Amino acid sequence: MSANHVLIVGSVALDSVQTPSGRAVRALGGAAVYSSVAASFFAPVRMVGVVGEDVPAEHVDFLKSRNIDVMGLQIVPGGRTFHWAGAYEGDMNQADTLATELNVFQDFRPELPEAYLSSDYVFLANIDPELQLTVLDQVPAAKLKAVDTMNFWITSKYDALREVISRVDVVFINDAELRQFTGIVNLTKAAAAVHDLGPSYVIVKKGEHGAVMYCNQEMCFAAASYPLAEVADPTGAGDSFAGGFMGYLAGTGQINPTNLRRAVVYGSTLASYNVQEFSLNRFKSLTKGEIASRYDEFKRIVLID
Amino acid sequence: MSANHVLIVGSVALDSVQTPSGRAVRALGGAAVYSSVAASFFAPVRMVGVVGEDVPAEHVDFLKSRNIDVMGLQIVPGGRTFHWAGAYEGDMNQADTLATELNVFQDFRPELPEAYLSSDYVFLANIDPELQLTVLDQVPAAKLKAVDTMNFWITSKYDALREVISRVDVVFINDAELRQFTGIVNLTKAAAAVHDLGPSYVIVKKGEHGAVMYCNQEMCFAAASYPLAEVADPTGAGDSFAGGFMGYLAGTGQINPTNLRRAVVYGSTLASYNVQEFSLNRFKSLTKGEIASRYDEFKRIVLID
Repeated sequence: MSANHVLIVGSVALDSVQTPSGRAVRALGGAAVYSSVAASFFAPVRMVGVVGEDVPAEHVDFLKSRNIDVMGLQIVPGGRTFHWAGAYEGDMNQADTLATELNVFQDFRPELPEAYLSSDYVFLANIDPELQLTVLDQVPAAKLKAVDTMNFWITSKYDALREVISRVDVVFINDAELRQFTGIVNLTKAAAAVHDLGPSYVIVKKGEHGAVMYCNQEMCFAAASYPLAEVADPTGAGDSFAGGFMGYLAGTGQINPTNLRRAVVYGSTLASYNVQEFSLNRFKSLTKGEIASRYDEFKRIVLID
Repeated sequence: MSANHVLIVGSVALDSVQTPSGRAVRALGGAAVYSSVAASFFAPVRMVGVVGEDVPAEHVDFLKSRNIDVMGLQIVPGGRTFHWAGAYEGDMNQADTLATELNVFQDFRPELPEAYLSSDYVFLANIDPELQLTVLDQVPAAKLKAVDTMNFWITSKYDALREVISRVDVVFINDAELRQFTGIVNLTKAAAAVHDLGPSYVIVKKGEHGAVMYCNQEMCFAAASYPLAEVADPTGAGDSFAGGFMGYLAGTGQINPTNLRRAVVYGSTLASYNVQEFSLNRFKSLTKGEIASRYDEFKRIVLID
């Protein structure tokens, strides 16, 4: 049997980030990049995104070196890459956006190369839900479709987002966004309301408080957050989580309760490593042995024996 | 071997509470009451507190019926019982205090009956840290001493609270209070700073996000919160948690890593039941079978197999 590919569609960015630990200037970022690199530790990835000609070749080379097919990465001649600038303070649970330059991302239309259409695992990283819908139209037979989003789309494109959610199997969302999207304070009830729209799995990301998975109306799994004394840069944590989750499931090829729980823990593992350095830097040195070791730590800290 | 007793010192109150689910008027409450009843499911309790003559006899009878020794419960002739009125809204993570009438609690001086002095498990529920110090003076040889506190004392009696903390083994504290007490945002570092003062175990209560235990500088256990679709009244959740924790440990008589983790889960179990009804009402019907059943649910939702 050939490997299951993970198709990932989302933003590719050059990020300028300030945190109490330091700063990065025009460093590689974007939801598609974080999630693709995280997924690539477990399964081959097919990435769809857009960049300008200003993107340093080393970034594209890095992706290629990671079992990531970049045939779907559009390079706009003369264009400039999406740029986001943000700062984190205090508990770093939320970024203050200092600047957003959409650039080539403004006219992005995700087009899937023919070779991508057979992808069984599809992750729609955080972009305009109207674009997410055009991707779903192209992969009707995928085995597992997942979506991530953000507060901005809940406010500005609620109807499109609702339609996206009604057509996927897995929703990644943070606790504040889940409350915002449903108008329901209680997370268990809010997750049930999302389930009623269609998705089998609602995965609520709670930052330093870990993540919770709801399966068919019920909370079926709660994962702790890994205790880090230092967080260098939280950018991409949620994307790394989702990528690790999707990559692990694709790698196993079996969607069952045990693997879903493990996928949440692998997602948490990737996210916890990612925030220890700026940009994708920690992923560049991360080994499978380190992933296995932290996964075991995650098991240890929740052990009830 | 005779059973290990849990000595509990704290407030006994008549609470008037409003929540989106309803209201209770002058119902039994107080940190010593919630924690004593929770502990009494696992071990005999010795309670120290004060009430006025206005306290309904049925409340004292209820405590006596629960394996709780009330020899240390002072009844002030002609006095009125401590009264707290509060309201919860939205996610109910924090109460708005509407009224506080200290009444007999104003002049409370915890005096331990002779028979209480041999107690090996001591829980100082949330009261003035200067009073907590007078209790510690009376039980120098106790095997496990634990303290709970609140934001009010961190602000108003920081030095006394710091001394209390330096003299106990276990600190129960919520995440906001831990940050406030230490001035450190990162919970792992903040817990380490508390450990440096003396306590072996720092247990951080995070409400809907569960609880985390730090043992000697490191996070040694993370417990999920039980997913409740309805919370009737969050009053006493933290006290029930601490009481369940202390009661379970006293019941086993063995303070070791396995039992400490189990104690956190039993504490979470008692807290999750308590908030399902107003005042102590859920505890009045709660059975050991129900406790065992929800404990198993807690294990199930964190299972990584």
